[in-house]
Amino acid sequence: MADKKTVLIVGAGPGLSASLARRFSKEGVQVALAARNAEKLSDICAETGAKAYGCNAIVPAEMEKLFADVTNDLGQPDIAVYNASNRVRGPITDIAPEAVLQAITISCYGGFLMAQQAAKQMVPRGAGAIFFTGASAGVKGYPNSTTFAMGKFGLRGLAQALARELHPQNIHIGHFVIDGGISKGADDPRNDRGPDGLLDPDSIAETYWQFWQQPRDSWAWEIELRPWGEKF
Amino acid sequence: MADKKTVLIVGAGPGLSASLARRFSKEGVQVALAARNAEKLSDICAETGAKAYGCNAIVPAEMEKLFADVTNDLGQPDIAVYNASNRVRGPITDIAPEAVLQAITISCYGGFLMAQQAAKQMVPRGAGAIFFTGASAGVKGYPNSTTFAMGKFGLRGLAQALARELHPQNIHIGHFVIDGGISKGADDPRNDRGPDGLLDPDSIAETYWQFWQQPRDSWAWEIELRPWGEKF
Amino acid sequence: MADKKTVLIVGAGPGLSASLARRFSKEGVQVALAARNAEKLSDICAETGAKAYGCNAIVPAEMEKLFADVTNDLGQPDIAVYNASNRVRGPITDIAPEAVLQAITISCYGGFLMAQQAAKQMVPRGAGAIFFTGASAGVKGYPNSTTFAMGKFGLRGLAQALARELHPQNIHIGHFVIDGGISKGADDPRNDRGPDGLLDPDSIAETYWQFWQQPRDSWAWEIELRPWGEKF
Amino acid sequence: MADKKTVLIVGAGPGLSASLARRFSKEGVQVALAARNAEKLSDICAETGAKAYGCNAIVPAEMEKLFADVTNDLGQPDIAVYNASNRVRGPITDIAPEAVLQAITISCYGGFLMAQQAAKQMVPRGAGAIFFTGASAGVKGYPNSTTFAMGKFGLRGLAQALARELHPQNIHIGHFVIDGGISKGADDPRNDRGPDGLLDPDSIAETYWQFWQQPRDSWAWEIELRPWGEKF
Repeated sequence: MADKKTVLIVGAGPGLSASLARRFSKEGVQVALAARNAEKLSDICAETGAKAYGCNAIVPAEMEKLFADVTNDLGQPDIAVYNASNRVRGPITDIAPEAVLQAITISCYGGFLMAQQAAKQMVPRGAGAIFFTGASAGVKGYPNSTTFAMGKFGLRGLAQALARELHPQNIHIGHFVIDGGISKGADDPRNDRGPDGLLDPDSIAETYWQFWQQPRDSWAWEIELRPWGEKF
Repeated sequence: MADKKTVLIVGAGPGLSASLARRFSKEGVQVALAARNAEKLSDICAETGAKAYGCNAIVPAEMEKLFADVTNDLGQPDIAVYNASNRVRGPITDIAPEAVLQAITISCYGGFLMAQQAAKQMVPRGAGAIFFTGASAGVKGYPNSTTFAMGKFGLRGLAQALARELHPQNIHIGHFVIDGGISKGADDPRNDRGPDGLLDPDSIAETYWQFWQQPRDSWAWEIELRPWGEKF
Repeated sequence: MADKKTVLIVGAGPGLSASLARRFSKEGVQVALAARNAEKLSDICAETGAKAYGCNAIVPAEMEKLFADVTNDLGQPDIAVYNASNRVRGPITDIAPEAVLQAITISCYGGFLMAQQAAKQMVPRGAGAIFFTGASAGVKGYPNSTTFAMGKFGLRGLAQALARELHPQNIHIGHFVIDGGISKGADDPRNDRGPDGLLDPDSIAETYWQFWQQPRDSWAWEIELRPWGEKF
Repeated sequence: MADKKTVLIVGAGPGLSASLARRFSKEGVQVALAARNAEKLSDICAETGAKAYGCNAIVPAEMEKLFADVTNDLGQPDIAVYNASNRVRGPITDIAPEAVLQAITISCYGGFLMAQQAAKQMVPRGAGAIFFTGASAGVKGYPNSTTFAMGKFGLRGLAQALARELHPQNIHIGHFVIDGGISKGADDPRNDRGPDGLLDPDSIAETYWQFWQQPRDSWAWEIELRPWGEKF
């Protein structure tokens, strides 16, 4: 077990996290998946051999316990990926403050908590990677989407600050700006956007894999991915 | 009183808020100042005739009451300015999660709460301005400053989303990126940066005033201000 | 005459340059206008007392002569403004290379030539301002607009590099991102965009004036202006 | 020959272009290299089987002939890469206008000429890729580097405009922001920057390769690469 690499994916579910689990496990990387409700991960675990953990990502003690458990089971994560996000749509006059705070906390603060636990292991070790799944909402503020703007801009600020703080400590930061809909498969109703009009989560996962393979003489910290026909 | 304009400044204290109070009151605008501790505002109030209000900006009910009280006393605010911010400095491995969440909430979510109350009055009225005091940390993530990056990037995301949402409703959004130290006066220890090496809060307040004067055929939503010798 | 300030506007014509001439001359600033064809400036000159100069802005010797002539007539310019631009529209497959090169040269290289002549006077003097009129095409590359993208991105790069180079020498750089149509008056056919749907050149000129008034402890180098209803 | 893919690299020389030639030829891609002086390419050609062409990239007729010759010899290029750039360093007061214009023309206009010839083949074909080698100078204007700022900002504007114009036509645009020194090998005097303190051109070439492999449902148009210890 000591020689195997481990990836921990927080905010896991079907879609991108499942593709990441497949992509990394295919290369012999051990996969740990964390979600508030671990039971919904059983299919991915069955397919990829991943291990599932229950964790509410916005509770510091739960995030701490998650890293302790994964470390105990599989060793310290070599890569930690934050996929959780939450939003509230609507004109600013209409949305509920409590839901807005909850959404920012999940989209951004939970990413901080994961990054902090990861850094506590990676800084002493002098190696590791911390990846964040962003959105076009993190680089452009859209109308009727103030909540997502706050959460995803904040997450991008965290990633950029960490790139400057941790790259010189040999910890690779990645922020992936997903611009477009992620396909849910052949019967996704949004398939009317034309061929390849939705991002295939397997394609996205490939880019995460490539980031992890980058030699440190040529690190990127951010990349934007969108379908060929997507307006931007 | 009905003809007078009113500005509400949230997160008030000595420095920029005092300069704003002076600048706007000089033009006959009524000034309402809100801070967690309203007593510390007594000097500014004495100087400018401003009215002080106690308000914890991150509590929805207190923000709602603030707008109700100001409206009752002075009329609906024509301009609302969010100046509050909070940060935690240090390597990500060292900072306390609770303090980080508190800081994000003050820097970003409190701005949302103010903007929401302002919008609830301004959208039906079809007029108004909502200004946010940002920082260079909102456009560049600095090492050992993850907390400020999250809070100020998030605030900028809010401002940009609101510019797209509310400009077409005749509500002017302003986001002011302050890059450098704000002078605390003649005996500021940072005066060793050379002549005009710190931002004079009166100069900053002048720019807020100019934004408010902009005719809507030529609105800006953002401006960066820094001393002439500041590296960027 | 020695006490009077002088502004030189290169690439002058009806529209923004006329508004700038009016705005600055109203404050007692002497105005010099330069265009390839000086004759078309006679109306503005008659109205504002400006002095007109013929100059092909992309020919180094002509730019040098322009500064010599203005200096001789009115004194060294305190502010130099570059307004010239040129574009070629169309799919990249369809546009003529010679016209493309010409357009880039006018939009960007001419700005360099003006800035260089201005800097040669301002650096030794330790004071001055150099302003550039940009466009949304300088911050976002639009389809079928490669030529304008090259010219205006390049001009913005020049302005940003100069802000870092010359601000510490007390020379103020301004880059104005005009996003939208500039009104040509009451019978502008684009007035169907609704009230205040086009930028009033007088409003833009006011912002140039404000930049020039900024104290150096709080300098901006860039601002974006657009009508309240403009999509961005 | 019909089944083989072809890459054309313009502005070729030792360093990145050689690494690209090696990376693509290793995969069975035919490599065409173009430089003003084709003779200096003989070593790379000997190593990789690439074919060398003489071409002054800023002369439209030469660029047109280059594409005709490559098409005749190897077939239409599937990927065209623009690597040429030129700069003039120094304070704006000191640099020669003629050299500045020449540098902008090489860094930016030559890229347009290559993209235009490539697009003339790729648009009818409905497939292809056009890549541009950028620099940190294309996203940040540095002092005493106005020339490089104009050239590289302009090139980035071109790339971004083309991404919006040609992505929907199945032509993939890539803009690679190289931030840092590219290693010239074991005896590079800048090796004192510490281990992996310079970008290895083979690492950069790998990223170009990955971009070409991206499925069109998840295209990136830009990526920044820098050594782990590089300040940014």
